[in-house]
Amino acid sequence: MGKGNNPASERRGKVFLVGAGPGDPELLTVKAQRLISQAALILHDDLVAPAILALAAPHAEVANVGKRFGAKGATQAEINKRMIAAARRGLEVVRLKGGDPGIFGRLAEEIDALETAGVPFEVVPGVTAGIAAAASLGVSLTDRRKAARVVVVTNHLAHSEATPESTDWRGLIREDSTLVIYMPGHDFAALRDQLLAAGCPLDMPAAIVSRASLPDQRYRFITAGELDGLPPIDSPAVLLVGRSLDRAQRRANSSAALALDEAEFILSSLEA
Amino acid sequence: MGKGNNPASERRGKVFLVGAGPGDPELLTVKAQRLISQAALILHDDLVAPAILALAAPHAEVANVGKRFGAKGATQAEINKRMIAAARRGLEVVRLKGGDPGIFGRLAEEIDALETAGVPFEVVPGVTAGIAAAASLGVSLTDRRKAARVVVVTNHLAHSEATPESTDWRGLIREDSTLVIYMPGHDFAALRDQLLAAGCPLDMPAAIVSRASLPDQRYRFITAGELDGLPPIDSPAVLLVGRSLDRAQRRANSSAALALDEAEFILSSLEA
Repeated sequence: MGKGNNPASERRGKVFLVGAGPGDPELLTVKAQRLISQAALILHDDLVAPAILALAAPHAEVANVGKRFGAKGATQAEINKRMIAAARRGLEVVRLKGGDPGIFGRLAEEIDALETAGVPFEVVPGVTAGIAAAASLGVSLTDRRKAARVVVVTNHLAHSEATPESTDWRGLIREDSTLVIYMPGHDFAALRDQLLAAGCPLDMPAAIVSRASLPDQRYRFITAGELDGLPPIDSPAVLLVGRSLDRAQRRANSSAALALDEAEFILSSLEA
Repeated sequence: MGKGNNPASERRGKVFLVGAGPGDPELLTVKAQRLISQAALILHDDLVAPAILALAAPHAEVANVGKRFGAKGATQAEINKRMIAAARRGLEVVRLKGGDPGIFGRLAEEIDALETAGVPFEVVPGVTAGIAAAASLGVSLTDRRKAARVVVVTNHLAHSEATPESTDWRGLIREDSTLVIYMPGHDFAALRDQLLAAGCPLDMPAAIVSRASLPDQRYRFITAGELDGLPPIDSPAVLLVGRSLDRAQRRANSSAALALDEAEFILSSLEA
């Protein structure tokens, strides 16, 4: 549809596809904070923290369109329809997603829908959960001495696929890579087997981080071989795997040696 | 060194290793903005934008410790020494790095030095350049239909290594991966040959993005096979490669068909 033939777009409605960051309101970008406080309509995922939604203007409509909103197929169509309708009424819409919208945020489908509808949009990047998790542990995902690359994957491909399939771990396990696994799920025994089958050494350092940057963040350092001993964890969670975790793991273990309840995750605090 | 024996640490000096984001001051996190405005000493890399440094307090000392500061070996030691000395004097120090400090930011060396010195530190994550570049083009780095993983690499391993070595591209080229190449360098013909030798199809979509999020951002969509035709680009630059770029590439090509000076990069604007 040509712009000249679309009177709706002349009302200057627009959709901002915004990353909300990992959860701490201070880890919003300045731009996200501004857009949230200005938007007429905010459509947000489940995982966006209440403290972030509290930044919305008093007159704004704030709606949870996360997974609990309804059946999966209906939800995406409904989200698209609602964004498009509001923008055509001339509104500024913020579509707010946890972390960065372009990393496992189902951004592509929404861009496709907006573009097909001829609705102006802008993507506002955010701090993605894996990067926030690493920062909270004092881990550098790359390390000139140990990690030349970072591989970002999910263990939850079946999440919204018509045909469930499992992650292909071949080629992902390398001594010089840091692996950042989003949505690691709860079956850590199966994940351990898959990683080891793909060549991951038993002693490869790993860390599970739950609710990175939030007040109830928890983490635990382990090795790949110990993954099957992990207790259930709160969402969202990220699993980091790689030699780049070496030093932070030693640091955590030496503090934890003082008094550690092995059944509990460790409340994150990096104060030296 | 035990904390009880270290009177310096009781003065509460601290080093914040802070991501400055891709360049646009609005893509700072709220926390980074606050810390920059509060710090007594800011030690920043070359690539941090002047508009961001302008947020420093009037009384703050702001020093460029980037590559132009001196010889490479001396620089890292000098940065470490300066951070540690200032923290021991009880100051709040912001060590400000472009993008996210944990992605090709030489964070690990600085954490090691701070930890060895017993100086408290905290890592504040930022929006990394590759994520900002994708957002600026309206590209989702993952796509349930096309891209199950994101691989973040640099083409510039020799950057600060004693022994130059080249990036190992084996296993990186897959139909279902998006490749984010930091510091792609200027020898795009060699990079093209390496990617193709690793199995990259000639028609694989790619985009070079220079100075993502800054007013002088430029980008160009190409294919892997056309990489050798790229003109020199301004730093920092990021090269994105993958099927996840398909739709944005078609969008750009259809706008560019109107009037495109092929010798110039396209000034980034996503307005639909």
